[in-house]
Amino acid sequence: MLEKTTRVNFLYDFYQTLLTEKQRIYMQLYYLDDLSLGEIAEEYGVSRQAVYDNVRRTEAMLEDYEDKLNLFSKFQKRMEMIEELEQLLPTMNHGTSEKMQILLTALKDHE
Amino acid sequence: MLEKTTRVNFLYDFYQTLLTEKQRIYMQLYYLDDLSLGEIAEEYGVSRQAVYDNVRRTEAMLEDYEDKLNLFSKFQKRMEMIEELEQLLPTMNHGTSEKMQILLTALKDHE
Repeated sequence: MLEKTTRVNFLYDFYQTLLTEKQRIYMQLYYLDDLSLGEIAEEYGVSRQAVYDNVRRTEAMLEDYEDKLNLFSKFQKRMEMIEELEQLLPTMNHGTSEKMQILLTALKDHE
Repeated sequence: MLEKTTRVNFLYDFYQTLLTEKQRIYMQLYYLDDLSLGEIAEEYGVSRQAVYDNVRRTEAMLEDYEDKLNLFSKFQKRMEMIEELEQLLPTMNHGTSEKMQILLTALKDHE
């Protein structure tokens, strides 16, 4: 059985544009909409095994892209660095810390 | 004639791990080592046209990856945001601005 993990959801977010439309549909139904493999198979008139194989292959592709591009691990590292910056806010005067908070929030949302 | 641009160099930095070894070799010789198409062709015993086609196809692939993942444009945007943060440094007390400068430099180098 495939494990529905947070990691796969993150990898999907980062690399979904590199997948085929069919891969995206199966991944969305399975991971985001939380349908079962059997339900997806029925919906698309294919075997449960076919859906399983497709989703498993897609997961392997996502891990392969992460091995090559490290977008998820770099993102995590950047978030840690931004959090360290946020810890400096209380030591600043109000005007500065307010401006810096806005910029740091924008930096996080930009991902 | 192919134009040796900064943009291609950046795209190559971001996406080189998605290229084949042969693509990487030609791109490195042409863009980083600044060899001519003719020199590369002679080195590898292929036609100048073959090298040209390979490099042009690789450039198209890099642009396609950028269309899908936007790593270069996101990087540029993040750099702008970090520069805005740096502009706040002079308004802080010395201890804080020093710590913040170290963190911002680390954030930039992390890319």
